[in-house]
Amino acid sequence: MKRFVVKLGGSLLFDDDGLVKIDFVKNTLTVLREAAKDDTKIIVVVGGGVTARKYIHQARPYVENESALDQLGILASRLNAALLHSIYYKTFPVIPSSLEELARIVASALPVIFMGGLQPGQSTTTVSALAAEATGSQLIIATDVEGVYTADPKRDPSAKLLKSVSIDSLIDIFSKVQKAGEYRLFDSLTLQIIKRAKIHTRVLKGDPPENIIRAIEGEDIGTLIEPA
Amino acid sequence: MKRFVVKLGGSLLFDDDGLVKIDFVKNTLTVLREAAKDDTKIIVVVGGGVTARKYIHQARPYVENESALDQLGILASRLNAALLHSIYYKTFPVIPSSLEELARIVASALPVIFMGGLQPGQSTTTVSALAAEATGSQLIIATDVEGVYTADPKRDPSAKLLKSVSIDSLIDIFSKVQKAGEYRLFDSLTLQIIKRAKIHTRVLKGDPPENIIRAIEGEDIGTLIEPA
Amino acid sequence: MKRFVVKLGGSLLFDDDGLVKIDFVKNTLTVLREAAKDDTKIIVVVGGGVTARKYIHQARPYVENESALDQLGILASRLNAALLHSIYYKTFPVIPSSLEELARIVASALPVIFMGGLQPGQSTTTVSALAAEATGSQLIIATDVEGVYTADPKRDPSAKLLKSVSIDSLIDIFSKVQKAGEYRLFDSLTLQIIKRAKIHTRVLKGDPPENIIRAIEGEDIGTLIEPA
Amino acid sequence: MKRFVVKLGGSLLFDDDGLVKIDFVKNTLTVLREAAKDDTKIIVVVGGGVTARKYIHQARPYVENESALDQLGILASRLNAALLHSIYYKTFPVIPSSLEELARIVASALPVIFMGGLQPGQSTTTVSALAAEATGSQLIIATDVEGVYTADPKRDPSAKLLKSVSIDSLIDIFSKVQKAGEYRLFDSLTLQIIKRAKIHTRVLKGDPPENIIRAIEGEDIGTLIEPA
Amino acid sequence: MKRFVVKLGGSLLFDDDGLVKIDFVKNTLTVLREAAKDDTKIIVVVGGGVTARKYIHQARPYVENESALDQLGILASRLNAALLHSIYYKTFPVIPSSLEELARIVASALPVIFMGGLQPGQSTTTVSALAAEATGSQLIIATDVEGVYTADPKRDPSAKLLKSVSIDSLIDIFSKVQKAGEYRLFDSLTLQIIKRAKIHTRVLKGDPPENIIRAIEGEDIGTLIEPA
Amino acid sequence: MKRFVVKLGGSLLFDDDGLVKIDFVKNTLTVLREAAKDDTKIIVVVGGGVTARKYIHQARPYVENESALDQLGILASRLNAALLHSIYYKTFPVIPSSLEELARIVASALPVIFMGGLQPGQSTTTVSALAAEATGSQLIIATDVEGVYTADPKRDPSAKLLKSVSIDSLIDIFSKVQKAGEYRLFDSLTLQIIKRAKIHTRVLKGDPPENIIRAIEGEDIGTLIEPA
Repeated sequence: MKRFVVKLGGSLLFDDDGLVKIDFVKNTLTVLREAAKDDTKIIVVVGGGVTARKYIHQARPYVENESALDQLGILASRLNAALLHSIYYKTFPVIPSSLEELARIVASALPVIFMGGLQPGQSTTTVSALAAEATGSQLIIATDVEGVYTADPKRDPSAKLLKSVSIDSLIDIFSKVQKAGEYRLFDSLTLQIIKRAKIHTRVLKGDPPENIIRAIEGEDIGTLIEPA
Repeated sequence: MKRFVVKLGGSLLFDDDGLVKIDFVKNTLTVLREAAKDDTKIIVVVGGGVTARKYIHQARPYVENESALDQLGILASRLNAALLHSIYYKTFPVIPSSLEELARIVASALPVIFMGGLQPGQSTTTVSALAAEATGSQLIIATDVEGVYTADPKRDPSAKLLKSVSIDSLIDIFSKVQKAGEYRLFDSLTLQIIKRAKIHTRVLKGDPPENIIRAIEGEDIGTLIEPA
Repeated sequence: MKRFVVKLGGSLLFDDDGLVKIDFVKNTLTVLREAAKDDTKIIVVVGGGVTARKYIHQARPYVENESALDQLGILASRLNAALLHSIYYKTFPVIPSSLEELARIVASALPVIFMGGLQPGQSTTTVSALAAEATGSQLIIATDVEGVYTADPKRDPSAKLLKSVSIDSLIDIFSKVQKAGEYRLFDSLTLQIIKRAKIHTRVLKGDPPENIIRAIEGEDIGTLIEPA
Repeated sequence: MKRFVVKLGGSLLFDDDGLVKIDFVKNTLTVLREAAKDDTKIIVVVGGGVTARKYIHQARPYVENESALDQLGILASRLNAALLHSIYYKTFPVIPSSLEELARIVASALPVIFMGGLQPGQSTTTVSALAAEATGSQLIIATDVEGVYTADPKRDPSAKLLKSVSIDSLIDIFSKVQKAGEYRLFDSLTLQIIKRAKIHTRVLKGDPPENIIRAIEGEDIGTLIEPA
Repeated sequence: MKRFVVKLGGSLLFDDDGLVKIDFVKNTLTVLREAAKDDTKIIVVVGGGVTARKYIHQARPYVENESALDQLGILASRLNAALLHSIYYKTFPVIPSSLEELARIVASALPVIFMGGLQPGQSTTTVSALAAEATGSQLIIATDVEGVYTADPKRDPSAKLLKSVSIDSLIDIFSKVQKAGEYRLFDSLTLQIIKRAKIHTRVLKGDPPENIIRAIEGEDIGTLIEPA
Repeated sequence: MKRFVVKLGGSLLFDDDGLVKIDFVKNTLTVLREAAKDDTKIIVVVGGGVTARKYIHQARPYVENESALDQLGILASRLNAALLHSIYYKTFPVIPSSLEELARIVASALPVIFMGGLQPGQSTTTVSALAAEATGSQLIIATDVEGVYTADPKRDPSAKLLKSVSIDSLIDIFSKVQKAGEYRLFDSLTLQIIKRAKIHTRVLKGDPPENIIRAIEGEDIGTLIEPA
């Protein structure tokens, strides 16, 4: 049984008005349905997207508790996961809310599992690394750019795409850019989990979603992160 | 120990853009904090509002499963409940997701409990009646009009406010208007629960929120629904 | 994977003394075991029967809380479900107590799942419709008559069996008879769920239980309810 | 905070037809309500009674799995506990189904907690001893005779009531009578728990229920079991 | 589907310093992996071993509550079960903590399930008998001697290995030796469960672990306990 | 209601042989019992200590999954929390295993709550910061030195105790020393939570435990971490 965790970035799923990019979602689910055949199980992690940002933005002046605000984001991400589950299975959704629940559902017959956040203080990218580690999965991070660059490609036109990068180099790159508040693809906690877990990780452009199936089939697409 | 379930209508909490009416929310929470003193426990039920409608609207063309769509609305209503809990307590929110969990939390020291929907096939107004029945509470339905009218006051200028109405008359009124798709204050399931439970129920204008405290203190405000 | 929810009426399972009609139960379970082969999963919903009625009858003069009384009925229906599970599997029973638990167990390897009620304010017929909707199942309602009649066949000898009936006609029929307290096959909530969910529904005589397998195999038996 | 576990024998609660002895139940709950004042918390353990016996009797020829049969008895005992909770609180019942749940509910504001069985292979008398041990409670076993006798008083007219008895003597008495299938007040597992836990235990006649309050108030009534 | 519960005695898994006998564990897991093929599901029950004894020994002078002390042993046994699960699956462990959870996990796709204790007042040998009964499994008790003897072989050199023994004879043997505090292979509760459940039970030497696969394959090894 | 989270470092609780320092534990619990009076609720977070290290050390060569290894540490920390709960309350322990469970138990009548780890990828110091944030508590980190130093006082004799330090300075100090593998009092995730949550945090010597009560009473002891 091969297992993959696929992190779908919010910008792939939602437009700026918070509307679902329904064509992309449908195509992605079609791709996942194909990939989930043949002894392959896929865990899809989605973020809270625009809904999360809107609730947190409105609550922040009155709440002053980042744990509570994060929980709003987590509930929004589970709503997004339920949306995708509903479209995929056309049944009442089952969304794990802890690694223990995830482990139980992975042992069920569901070929594709959708989930959002788990706990305050973690990005959903961290959740995807934790889920990959807990279930012995490979990790595919689908973003809106081709992979990992030497700098944020949206800000720095000289940034170069890396075909592969060691986890230690990646930690170096992001420890520099994080201080400057730039290039937020990875937070340090996610990188720590990827490093310690020696997770096979690939970063790629999620659009077109066929890229995901190419990565699942082992093609050398996007950026491969090499374990230390 | 006196107990009240307060249903807050979506139009009180959210504007048409899905933004929280934060001044109303803050004032309402201040009122609830006052009322919850002195051996009085309050359960606040909120609907999914604009967030629920947006998710359901977007999903409907692709899902064709009302159970799954309802569950999206329920998750959105719990997100709204978590928002109010966060503002009230400034801590990680605790939101019951079944009548059994509600019964356990009512037995805890929390003076005010926030919740959303419970199960597909029920409006949050039905949930508020079920919660009142399960916990032996009085029910206060806070809406954007003064109480129950002989017809929908937003459509029919000749509609008259009722100071009190028997549950059987109410069922008559709404069985007529529901067929015509008008005046959706109550669905038939909610009325059945109110009737069978003989719940002390008051419908009132939730703005200003002081109306809620007046109802809790026993003032004859809005419309009283008299048990059969 | 084809899925069916089978509602077994109390009068099929229990005699007037509250004793299990064990021959019927054994034959039904044999039929279900056959039907559950070949990529077909079956969810069996049973009511509280005589046990529920006895507890509720005794408690009513002292309880005056329909939510609590309903919960006694729900616990009795789960006891009945556990009885059937025990006879079917001869192991410790697993009975879902919410739609979410049902969704998880449906994803397990159990070919036949037994359940009772879920929440106060719902008949187990409503539960069977909610379960069919949540899991994308066809619904088979097994009763003690041949199907749906134009009136209650036990009271009105001129009542005619309908080979098929549109859900809208059915709602008309039952909105008339319910006022008169007659013909309680369907409550209005169940009909609403069947209508909105467009569930493929068949009402048939559960005795002999072979009728159930005939319905599962697609035979035109009893009354077919046609979605609007 | 003083804590008591009160085991109510089935013969006190139900007559031979399985009907609740409602006057006894009401009087008992009145007594418990009084006793639960003043920093005293009471856990009431009830058996499955006639309902349990009827289900188990009917299932046995077809089930051949004592674990499943016991679980039917446990579900029946929880139904009985829910019945008493409903009469006592007139709200949706909360019934713990494990020692962990019991420990959580004991930490809530409920002054009286009702429960039935926990696990196959245990009598509800054993459950009452486990609950007393887990929560640091005194144990009151309310039966239909005055206390512990030197032999089964229903069979042996020369049996003498013991005002007090050491747990070791009790184990001796019951190890002899159990072989002969007589005097089933205690099973050996219950006695083991009482012995190891050094639980303060009193056996008394539950009718009139005022006897229970006399034991709670420290009166020397029935039989005191002295820890080794 | 054939099912087996395998009880692994603490002395097989841990040396006197509380260190895991890692070679034995690895060989055992290899054997279980082989045996779990071909429609055979295996539930492994482990005790708390040296860790349990150390915690209980240190806590006893200050706790004086056997329920709490037993729970320390249960948590230690689940830690041991998690250790074995981790080595077997190399993923986040899933350990059932009740018979109900066990029944759900048995219905999942996991071929081998690891568990520890369930409730105060039970040895993990009792748990293995309860698990076998609940799931309809055969029971294999792997110890550090060849099987059941006429007396404790570690104390009495004249003790003879029994190739088979009826459960009633076994109860006789252990009711005698238990009083003397000797030969603790079985406690009386375990024997009661084995007797009433008519569980097919075999006691054998767990080292080499190939003995377990021989028992699973039906070979006449160790001591067979014959149901009454 | 004032709330405190107290993190007890493993070196305070266990000696090098993994034995509980029982005198320290008893004195600490006495101190907590005093402090928990007067509207003050205390959440005690303990690490896995020697037990965790031993299990992880033994498993590592065979597991190669940090998530599973971390979970062994978490289960060991909950065993330690159960040990302290048992000594404090002398009843069956209740240990929260998620922030949501913690929030529910904080709403109960328990004045002191004991817990261990929550999720792989977090130290129990991080857990203590998350718990403080989620419940709106002040954080007291009890260690084996007087407070925060400019460098690890066990390695660098010129290290100076800081009476107070801004969270930003603290992050600077630890970002330098962490690279060198020195001074592990804080990991970067804990510091991030303390910073974002603006938690009132004090680091002090836990021995004698009276220091903890002095901090709860507002005395300026150890090192105060000043929010940005």
